[in-house]
Amino acid sequence: MTAAGTRHAVRFENLNREAPCSEAETIFQSARRAGIRIVGACGGRGVCGTCMVRVLSGEIQADASQPARNPRKWLRACQVRPQGDCAVEVAPRSLARVVRAEVDGGSERPLAFDPVVGVHQVSLSVPTLYEGGADADRVLLALQQAGMKRIDLHALRELPSVLRENDWNVRAAWRGDEVIAIAAPGRRALGLAVDLGTTNCAGYLLDLESQAQLAGIGIENPQASYGADLVSRMNHAIGSAEQQRELQAAAATAISELGRTLCEAVSATPEDIIDVAICGNTAMHHLLLGLPVRQLGRAPYVPAACAALDVKARELGVVCAPGAYAHFMPNVGGYVGGDHVATLLATEERWAKATSIVMDIGTNTEISLIHNGKIFTVSCPSGPALEGGHISCGMRAAEGAIERVSLEQGRIAVKCIGDAEPVGLCGSGVLDAIAVLVETGIVDRGGRMQDAHPAVREQGGRKEALIAPGVALSQGDVRSVQLAKAAIRTGVDLLLREAGLEESGIERVIIAGAFGTYIRVESAIAIGLLPALPPERFEQVGNAAGLGVRMALASGTVRGRANELAVRCRYLELGSVPGFQKAFLARIGF
Amino acid sequence: MTAAGTRHAVRFENLNREAPCSEAETIFQSARRAGIRIVGACGGRGVCGTCMVRVLSGEIQADASQPARNPRKWLRACQVRPQGDCAVEVAPRSLARVVRAEVDGGSERPLAFDPVVGVHQVSLSVPTLYEGGADADRVLLALQQAGMKRIDLHALRELPSVLRENDWNVRAAWRGDEVIAIAAPGRRALGLAVDLGTTNCAGYLLDLESQAQLAGIGIENPQASYGADLVSRMNHAIGSAEQQRELQAAAATAISELGRTLCEAVSATPEDIIDVAICGNTAMHHLLLGLPVRQLGRAPYVPAACAALDVKARELGVVCAPGAYAHFMPNVGGYVGGDHVATLLATEERWAKATSIVMDIGTNTEISLIHNGKIFTVSCPSGPALEGGHISCGMRAAEGAIERVSLEQGRIAVKCIGDAEPVGLCGSGVLDAIAVLVETGIVDRGGRMQDAHPAVREQGGRKEALIAPGVALSQGDVRSVQLAKAAIRTGVDLLLREAGLEESGIERVIIAGAFGTYIRVESAIAIGLLPALPPERFEQVGNAAGLGVRMALASGTVRGRANELAVRCRYLELGSVPGFQKAFLARIGF
Repeated sequence: MTAAGTRHAVRFENLNREAPCSEAETIFQSARRAGIRIVGACGGRGVCGTCMVRVLSGEIQADASQPARNPRKWLRACQVRPQGDCAVEVAPRSLARVVRAEVDGGSERPLAFDPVVGVHQVSLSVPTLYEGGADADRVLLALQQAGMKRIDLHALRELPSVLRENDWNVRAAWRGDEVIAIAAPGRRALGLAVDLGTTNCAGYLLDLESQAQLAGIGIENPQASYGADLVSRMNHAIGSAEQQRELQAAAATAISELGRTLCEAVSATPEDIIDVAICGNTAMHHLLLGLPVRQLGRAPYVPAACAALDVKARELGVVCAPGAYAHFMPNVGGYVGGDHVATLLATEERWAKATSIVMDIGTNTEISLIHNGKIFTVSCPSGPALEGGHISCGMRAAEGAIERVSLEQGRIAVKCIGDAEPVGLCGSGVLDAIAVLVETGIVDRGGRMQDAHPAVREQGGRKEALIAPGVALSQGDVRSVQLAKAAIRTGVDLLLREAGLEESGIERVIIAGAFGTYIRVESAIAIGLLPALPPERFEQVGNAAGLGVRMALASGTVRGRANELAVRCRYLELGSVPGFQKAFLARIGF
Repeated sequence: MTAAGTRHAVRFENLNREAPCSEAETIFQSARRAGIRIVGACGGRGVCGTCMVRVLSGEIQADASQPARNPRKWLRACQVRPQGDCAVEVAPRSLARVVRAEVDGGSERPLAFDPVVGVHQVSLSVPTLYEGGADADRVLLALQQAGMKRIDLHALRELPSVLRENDWNVRAAWRGDEVIAIAAPGRRALGLAVDLGTTNCAGYLLDLESQAQLAGIGIENPQASYGADLVSRMNHAIGSAEQQRELQAAAATAISELGRTLCEAVSATPEDIIDVAICGNTAMHHLLLGLPVRQLGRAPYVPAACAALDVKARELGVVCAPGAYAHFMPNVGGYVGGDHVATLLATEERWAKATSIVMDIGTNTEISLIHNGKIFTVSCPSGPALEGGHISCGMRAAEGAIERVSLEQGRIAVKCIGDAEPVGLCGSGVLDAIAVLVETGIVDRGGRMQDAHPAVREQGGRKEALIAPGVALSQGDVRSVQLAKAAIRTGVDLLLREAGLEESGIERVIIAGAFGTYIRVESAIAIGLLPALPPERFEQVGNAAGLGVRMALASGTVRGRANELAVRCRYLELGSVPGFQKAFLARIGF
């Protein structure tokens, strides 16, 4: 599914980036593949208008619905196909924003800093014919007291010129007993934390010296061009070694682009990044590392590796300091990855002293039940529906997205982000809408839309219920949500059974993740996604995985703690649990 | 200086190799660039007939002097230019031979085996939905007792399929606490030792389990297409990063080809090579590692690194087991490299208890003087003349090469290798010839050819002395040898002065290297290349560097010893020694 045919170069002028684009592709698609941070709330369906660009030069072909070609006109990038090399400007409001990391939910408390890397100043005398020695030998001698014993090959390749250009006063970045980079004395010592999700990748930049959380940003995972879901991507990777490399490179591109964009925002360069920490689900972990996924995709779903890994970032194609490592947080099992470990790490204070459920709702929903010091963990295939994916009018949480649906005097009322005209439904809106449809009886307890109801209409051969002008939920959408919520609820049931607990024994439900942050717990309880517990037992904690991976970036001690947590998790493979099918069917109704 | 223009593919059918060849190139040149082991004694001048090939298919253009094109005819590869893709067969006698390493001079004693790598058998249970764990985690757990803590990324990428294809019984190769390869249980554990010379590269294959020395072979350094001498190559590398990569890749090609050819000869595959040890002069060391050479090429000639280095072989492009390392023996200084350390290592028993000179004569001649436990080391720019390079009728020691020149009843008599018709002069023949020319007065003590002498003729504007029919030494050749021998002798003088010794105080002169093995010491003394000491003080020990690097491959303890020797060497930079010019001029005459 790579772009075929003639390739043009699209230059994103105000971002100083370039990406190849085939004639079959839109500018939006080429930007996504290159990890360029352009917003596209509706996923390129041409309805939301969040991916606006202006063509500065070059021939393009625009969709008929687009305004006439005009260099001063803003066009939807998802409707523009280049016919030759071209240059565009991305509208400022269409750029994913770099934010100060602190403002991102969940980072209210300061991180504990105890990084596994550091920097030393080195000053050498100018070598002469009579006195001197090899550059690297002298640097290591100067750093002998600091425990340095070796120098990375790529750092070594840069050493002679860096020494001479800086009058023999340089800065050596180290990790363990290894010098991993040599730089001019004024350069910074940054760390990049990455939460590599199936759909979205979040990056955070820390200053490992000043201990400041500098910036954060999210972009879409460029692997999406190989399939929205993990199974498609894994199948693509299994297809051939070349295809596996494509997915590996796409994931690496995401990380490099996160690093590059964040560094630009703080006037640094990616070479200042001397450490990288990454969390992701097990499949993303494997795809980024170039590990085979064939055995992961079929029973008994065995990962190539679960324990934490440290590899040279350059071996993955991630742009940073020459000898920097990428630390991969440990996985728990085939369908519970380092992102869940990061979530547990970030929420430990919340769950440590109570019987708790910790869940990160997404395409796969990982759930841990912590009880009496034991952690039971399961992953449920909840699909993209809850995040607004594969929903006919689904979209991301952007302007025009319906985020709240309620009943007001018996009529369906909606609230849109930015108080704009409704364009589609984001995840929290989907959940609210279904709850309202069930409450009004438009959808029955079995999930069936009532043909006779005036709000239900037949459109293009499918039944749908109108939520707002132009925005409807179809019978298929309702079925998708049904399957998702049944999967999650079954996961909770099985964990309770494994621990010998009743539902009422759950003292806390910690809901992590972007989707979980915005849902209305009442709606989730109403449709049976969450157990009916008193509201005060629920906590919506935002992107805990992003916080957890930042904690691991900042501290070697925390990495050790993450390893302990990963090993403590007792991983239940859904397929191995007796009675799973029966339990699932019992949870399918509303 | 890379081949330009249209590129054709030349297939060397009986070697199962392919190489690109531009229209401007001969098949001989393309083979050399690809490290394909085709003999070419005269260096491609079309005179020796040692590079014979038969064209099996494809269009070629042959030199006028070649016989008519005919698929059954053997042609000189150095006179054949492909006009399209073609396939050739290399004549069996034109193939550099793989020899049993033991027959190669200098390996009379067995090696001490104490390798830094090894193999373990691993057997795992078949994982199920109920029991299992990640592949790598289980392998490391099984090898916990053996001290294994991590697994190389590329080995990890192969792990899942190797485990499943071998019914969960595999062989793990290790180094330190790292698993570097996973293979089928029957696979071998081989080591490759390489003496990477400016002109020739020698490779040796050891079985690190059975401790057998399996095979050895020499090929020409493919970097020769970027210049015969180090200075040209260093200048090429300094030209641009791309050019530096070309030279790096050429050196890596040499090593990969040595490994591939040697493995083929013993029915193994390059993936069986789990350790590599390399020695070479400092410039070759830098070029193979991709280290900058700018600062090495100008005063004060500072290497990027001298201490021993271990890098992943794959980072250099060397084909072997996925996680195998390449060990680089330590350099002494800018012009004394790991090859000299290897020579000292291999000859230690010979020099340990006597005041000794150890020299390896080549384009650069490294000389150590060992006296009272101290090692003084110098490098002399002796140029290629002594090896028959840049000599008008110079050639390699192959059939038709004059290897001995003597005076018999006042007439010049020659002896050719293989008792064939004389084609050119190899190194030892050049030395003999000059000694005879000086003895007969054809060349005076100042190095000038006597115009009046009947053996001297004017040919194409240059004076030359006929040695045999069609083989002559020119005035320029004599001058080249003069400069070479003066440089070497000056080196010895300066070492003696540094140690406060007289020439007669030298108890042993150990002459290492291919050239040194074949020279007649009397001739070398006669022209003043070697000091006039009693013949029993001289020892010609063959390729001691090749032995030394094999010793280092076989043993971690020996590597430690090599490091000690390298540090013990007191390196004298010729340019820094007062009176060098004066001493050199005093040694210029015969």
